[in-house]
Order: sequence, then structure tokens, then C-alpha cells
Amino acid sequence: MSPVESMDVMVSLCKRRGFIFQSSEIYGGLGSVWDYGPLGVELKNNIKQAWWRAVVMERPDMEGLDAAIFMHPDVWKASGHVDGFTDPLVDCKSCKRRYRADELKDPKKCPECGGELTEPRMFNLMFKTFMGPVEETATTIYLRPETAQGIFANFDNVLTTMRRKLPFGIAQIGKAFRNEITTGNFIFRTREFEQMEIEFFVKPGTDQEWHEYWIKERLNWYKRFGINEENLRLHEHGADELAHYAKSCFDIEYRFPMGWAELEGIANRTDFDLRQHSQLSGKDLSYYDEQEKRRYIPYVIEPSAGVDRSLLAFLCDAYREEEVRGQKRVVLELHPALAPIKVAVFPLLKNRAQLVELAKKIADDLRGDFRTMYDDTAGIGKLYRRQDETGTPWCVTVDMQTLDDQQVTVRDRTTMEQIRIPIERVKPLISEYLQKAWQKP
Amino acid sequence: MSPVESMDVMVSLCKRRGFIFQSSEIYGGLGSVWDYGPLGVELKNNIKQAWWRAVVMERPDMEGLDAAIFMHPDVWKASGHVDGFTDPLVDCKSCKRRYRADELKDPKKCPECGGELTEPRMFNLMFKTFMGPVEETATTIYLRPETAQGIFANFDNVLTTMRRKLPFGIAQIGKAFRNEITTGNFIFRTREFEQMEIEFFVKPGTDQEWHEYWIKERLNWYKRFGINEENLRLHEHGADELAHYAKSCFDIEYRFPMGWAELEGIANRTDFDLRQHSQLSGKDLSYYDEQEKRRYIPYVIEPSAGVDRSLLAFLCDAYREEEVRGQKRVVLELHPALAPIKVAVFPLLKNRAQLVELAKKIADDLRGDFRTMYDDTAGIGKLYRRQDETGTPWCVTVDMQTLDDQQVTVRDRTTMEQIRIPIERVKPLISEYLQKAWQKP
Repeated sequence: MSPVESMDVMVSLCKRRGFIFQSSEIYGGLGSVWDYGPLGVELKNNIKQAWWRAVVMERPDMEGLDAAIFMHPDVWKASGHVDGFTDPLVDCKSCKRRYRADELKDPKKCPECGGELTEPRMFNLMFKTFMGPVEETATTIYLRPETAQGIFANFDNVLTTMRRKLPFGIAQIGKAFRNEITTGNFIFRTREFEQMEIEFFVKPGTDQEWHEYWIKERLNWYKRFGINEENLRLHEHGADELAHYAKSCFDIEYRFPMGWAELEGIANRTDFDLRQHSQLSGKDLSYYDEQEKRRYIPYVIEPSAGVDRSLLAFLCDAYREEEVRGQKRVVLELHPALAPIKVAVFPLLKNRAQLVELAKKIADDLRGDFRTMYDDTAGIGKLYRRQDETGTPWCVTVDMQTLDDQQVTVRDRTTMEQIRIPIERVKPLISEYLQKAWQKP
Repeated sequence: MSPVESMDVMVSLCKRRGFIFQSSEIYGGLGSVWDYGPLGVELKNNIKQAWWRAVVMERPDMEGLDAAIFMHPDVWKASGHVDGFTDPLVDCKSCKRRYRADELKDPKKCPECGGELTEPRMFNLMFKTFMGPVEETATTIYLRPETAQGIFANFDNVLTTMRRKLPFGIAQIGKAFRNEITTGNFIFRTREFEQMEIEFFVKPGTDQEWHEYWIKERLNWYKRFGINEENLRLHEHGADELAHYAKSCFDIEYRFPMGWAELEGIANRTDFDLRQHSQLSGKDLSYYDEQEKRRYIPYVIEPSAGVDRSLLAFLCDAYREEEVRGQKRVVLELHPALAPIKVAVFPLLKNRAQLVELAKKIADDLRGDFRTMYDDTAGIGKLYRRQDETGTPWCVTVDMQTLDDQQVTVRDRTTMEQIRIPIERVKPLISEYLQKAWQKP
């Protein structure tokens, strides 16, 4: 199956159905920052839950963490971000436009006006701010450009309080910020974004094996929650692509509308970070191996995924256009576990008080258990189409017959098949479907 | 029931059991910023889920939202935060210490050295940063000091895409930042914190009634998830306490170890914010009332809760010390829905391979469904005490008898009563308990 072909189609659907709005749209928007609407926030929460479930809950060898966005400035010295997290920028001397030097075809000539370019200068990508009341005397701190360092700084606390032995991992979901020059492709590259990161601590010498394990494991996660295999591929970093901390790195790439691009990076960070923090903080972050009776600094495998990118990939991959009885049908075939709304309930006729009342009662009854929507603001055909575009797996319709036989029609989003079942069977049926959807394969 | 008597006791338990660590502790810490450890992140996620469930999922009149932390700078002009979100600060001319003028008993004299103080100057509490590559040419933006404005800026988008009619609300959970001068009391007042905010839009004239409704509703939420009634009270803001946008405001206060303090503010923000944004953005944010055939700007009731404060209150309220057979027992009687670990599994003897293997198998089987811990690093008495301090509602112990009769001991955290049941009954039993725990009362 091909994913959606054009990003514009996706941007427009996301706005129309309440998935994603441009940030501060009423003020003309803020560059490459996006807000998640009523359906977007549900989808995003479900993706985070699906990740947490697979990497924390279902595993005996993982702990969770939620470190703050603000960290001590020395953290970013140790990690190499103060010195090394930079982009080379050039300015056009004529039109004053600014570019990333490494993205220019001709490093001497402005691609817009042909003017002369300055020599490249290095600009740090971290956002800085000032903690304390007065700027001059305040501490300069940074908004974290990755969540990973919160894990390294807490390695010893987690190890000790949870009485862990290697191998084990720490998983974290949270916001990170990068003052990128080149942003775009909707929510693919933004200045504020959310990461889902694992740092998996292993004995040196076993790191290659664990690296392979995690690449397979993470690929399977995307497939488990509905991404088609043919839209995923692996890309191994060449020596020129590797970050300063990595010994080797594989990207899981997804076939986005603009082409293949990174969805998740899985790097072997070696003992770089723990060693750096040990040195700069003076706190010994080595591990005592009871079997071998010796201390060493663990190696780290890091599967680092983007929440926003995953969400975009799940949306693109779920998008289908079909022709149904001569009309175009747009449907999001989202995995039921991820679908923002699980069930929608409609009265067949909105001007029949009894139908409206009964449909609302059914919706109220389902609402505590699943995210449920009630809608009567259009004819039944249009109501179905809206839910198809929303990705709602099941629609329940109350009609005149229901008043007699207490049965309703349940329609399946993907097949459009309809079955008729007693009202009291709706909740157990959907419960059962959803339980299966969440199950470990 | 009294909550924990000393904050130090709570800080120490939170560190010892992996709930909360000081941020960047290995670098000497960062002032009043805290990281949530393996148990803290689970508790926090459960609290957020309990809120989302009660205010979004279970209600027909609420939408969710997840707006970005970065917003257009004009948002904070319209909201009054650029001009009005300030604290009056004074400096001591001798010792250079800095104070909030409104917290001093003698506005002329340094409470530390007795030196002369400067006149108060106003300092804005918003953290600022710069978007764009070079500080001089970049846009100055702010880290949001409240999540509320993300809701107001998206009011029209949500109204339209979700085809809503008044009254309805928009709910949001997210980080906010305030460059506070006076912080402290553990996670009670921090510079980085998380809010759970509702903006509930109503017809002017009905706002007082809705204000009363939401005060009752939010008080009930804290009770539903385990806070004792006698540790909660209401405080009505006097004219001198009201924020610039509020017509009236009630605080839900909790009896923290340091005294009664605000847990949640429930304000009547009138049409202040939507009116301001309409004026500054030029975008009409009024609502067309189809029944009355006229447009008006909705009034807003805002129940604004702190995630971190709630978490601290839930912890303090759950804390008990008892004497059991001459020994002190510390137990966190957290509501089962909120408890970070739902079930712990132990082998009675850790040097019996068969017991260890079976206990691990049982833990593996429970893990997919509930947050489960396996532990064999101490004797059974100590293992129980650890889980008591963690707030784990149920412990399952595998003993020699289990190998014969396939039955295990299930111990209740609160009563310490033990029952013996077949292994295959453990999962359905806990499922049932938890389902009941989450149910709407």
C-alpha cells in the first residue's frame, strides 16, 4: 500500500478534521510550530501509550523516567552540545538571506539573487534562556535539544533505587527544542518537538548484539501498530553522517510524501555520555559487575524516536482514497489502538426525539470505557464519511427499528460491512476488539 | 486522617523509592527543578489519565487540545502577560540580596543584614528566548507561563472543526514556566511545572451557575481519587487577590505539611481573553447563538490544576505510619488507579530455582496488562515493606506449596490480609479490582 501522495492533502485533512492546527494561527502563525487539536491529542496520546506499553510495561528490563526540560548548564558542556551542536550558516551580502552552508550547491553564490555569500559561521542550535530575576545576573540555561541527557544524569539514581543489574534500559517521553534553520514538511521538522527515547545500558562487548536486537524490535513496533512493511527501510550512517558520540547508527526511514526520511535513529553511543558526565561532575558513573568482580562504564544503545514524526507516518500510512458507488471515499485506516475516537453513535434521523435520546444514551454508556463521539449534525452518509476521515473504527446507528427490537447497526470503517446486534452487546464487542488490538503479538 | 507531617519525610521517601530526584543532582542540582523517577513518572501519568478520563472522556461537552509551548509573542501582549505578569523586586544596597517587595515585613530594611533596600522594580516572570539563528535579528518569544492561552488562541478552530455549541469546554495538559523568585516546598512551587487546565465556554449570564458547578465537580475529583475530605477546603479570593482577568476565583486548598495552600484555582475569566485576542488579532472570536439569533463573546470558567501539586497532595494524603508487631510500617495508601505499580511478584526463597522461575513466569504474564514488578533481592518481610512504601496495592508470593497446588498468596497493601488463590485467578482478580477503581462513582 502506498501512503498518501501529497503532504498538502494531509495538512488539509488534519486541519479540517481537528488533528493539527498551525500554532497561533489567529496571529498569522508561528514558524514551524503546530498545535494538536481534539483528535490530534488523542492520536498522540495513543501513540505514546503504545510506545510506553511496548518498551516499558511489557518488559522486565526497563524503567521509565520523566526528567525536566531545564537542566544544569554543565550537562550540555559534558554532552558536547555547547561546543558541537552547531550548523554552519552563510549570509548573502546583497539580499541578506541566510542559508545553511552544507545545504548549498554553490557555496559562494546566493541561490536567490546570485549575490556573494559570507564565509560560514557556526551557530548553536540550542535555545537559551535566563533563570533568575535579572538577565545580567541570571544563569544562562538551555532548553534541552534531546531528552537523552536527562536519562544519563539520572543513571545512578535509577540504578540504585530500583536495584537494577545490566542489561537494563531507561525510557522517557518528553519535549525537546532545536533552533533549526531549515524546518518544514508539516510536523516532520519543527523547532519544538517530542521525543520517545530509550537508553539501554549493556556490558561493553555485548553492544553490537544489543544494537541489532533493538533495530529489529523497533521496526516491529511500527509494524505492530499498522505501518506497512514496504514503507519502512533501514539506512546505515556512513562515517560522515555519524554524530560525535556514536560508534554506529541505523535510521529507520519511512516513505513520507516528500520521500524517504528518518523516523527513528538507533545509535550505539558507547560509553561516551556516562564517561563525559563522570569526568565533568566528578561523580563515578561506573557499574560494579558482581559476576566479574570489576567496575566498568556501561555501553549504551539508544533507540530515539520522534512522537510527531511517528504520528505523521501513522497518518500518511493510514490514508486511503477509494471509489464507492461513484463517489470518492477518504478513509484513515488507523490501527484501532491508535484511532483517536473508538466509536461514534448516530441517530438515523435527527428530528426524531426518541432516536436522538436513545443514541445519546448509548453514547453516554460507552463514553466511560472508550473515547466516544455523538453526532447528529448531518445525514447518515455524511456522518459516516466524517468518521472515515477521522479513522473511527466503528459507527453505531440507531434507527426506527431499534425502538422496537433494541438492536443497532454497527458499521466497520475498513470493510464498510454492517452487522445488527442488541444494544447491550455493543460495549462487550468493542471491548473485545480493543483488547485484541492492544495485545502483544 | 492527617497527611504526612513533615515535607522532609516525603522528600526522603520520594528519593529512596524512585519517585522524585533533584534535577541534575550529579552537578549539584538546578534550583527548584525536579525529575520524576521510575515510580514518579507512573504516578504522574496515572494522575493525568485520571484527570483526562474525568474531564474529557466521560463527558459529552469537552474536547482535548495539546498546543505548543511556543506561541506568537502577540499572544502574551493580548493576555496581559507582557505588561502585567510581574513581581516587585528590591535589592539590598549592602549585601546585594534580592527580595520580593510584597513578601517583606519592613519594605525599607534588608531582613538579612539590615541594609537599605532599593525602591521596588517590576520584573516579568516569563522566560524569554530567541527564535531564529542570530540573537540580534531573532524573534523574542516566551515560554508560556500558563497553558490557557493555547486554548483561547484555538477556540475558533475547535469550535468549527468539532461543530460545537455552547456550553462546551477545552481541556489541556502541558508544561508551563515561570521565573519565580520565591520557590520551594519541594515540588509545590517550581520554575518548570505542568498544568491541567480547562476553559469552559458558556453564555454570559450563566457563568455564575457554571462556576459553582465546576467548583463542586473538581472537589469531587480529588475525593474520587483518594484525597480525604478534611484535608480539602475552599478559599474565595478577595478583591486584592484577584488576577487582572478574573471576576471571581475560588481556590481548592490542600492541607500540605507546610500548611493550607492552593491546589487548584477555579476562576471566572469572563470574556476577557477572547475579547483581547479578537481585538489584537483582528479575528472575530464571537459565537453565533442560533437560538437567540445573535453573536456574543462567550464567558469562560477556568478550573486550573497543577499536576505536580496534585501529585504531592496525593502522596502526602496517602502516607501512613503504623506499628506492626513492634515495628514501624510506612505505607502509601494510594488509590489503586493511581498506584505506580499495580502488582509485585516475589518468590518466597530466592535460592530455589523453581520458585524464582515460576514467580518470573507469573510476573511476565501479568506485565502486559498491569505495571508489574518482580523482586527477589531481599527477604519476604523487606520485600513487602518496599512495596508498602511504593503504594503497590497487591503482592503475589510464590512458595514451596505453590509447586504442588498451583496456588499463590495475594496480600492486600492496606489491610495486610492474605488470601490464597489459584495462579490463573490472579489476573482476573486484579483486572476486576482495577476496573472498579476506575469506574465513575
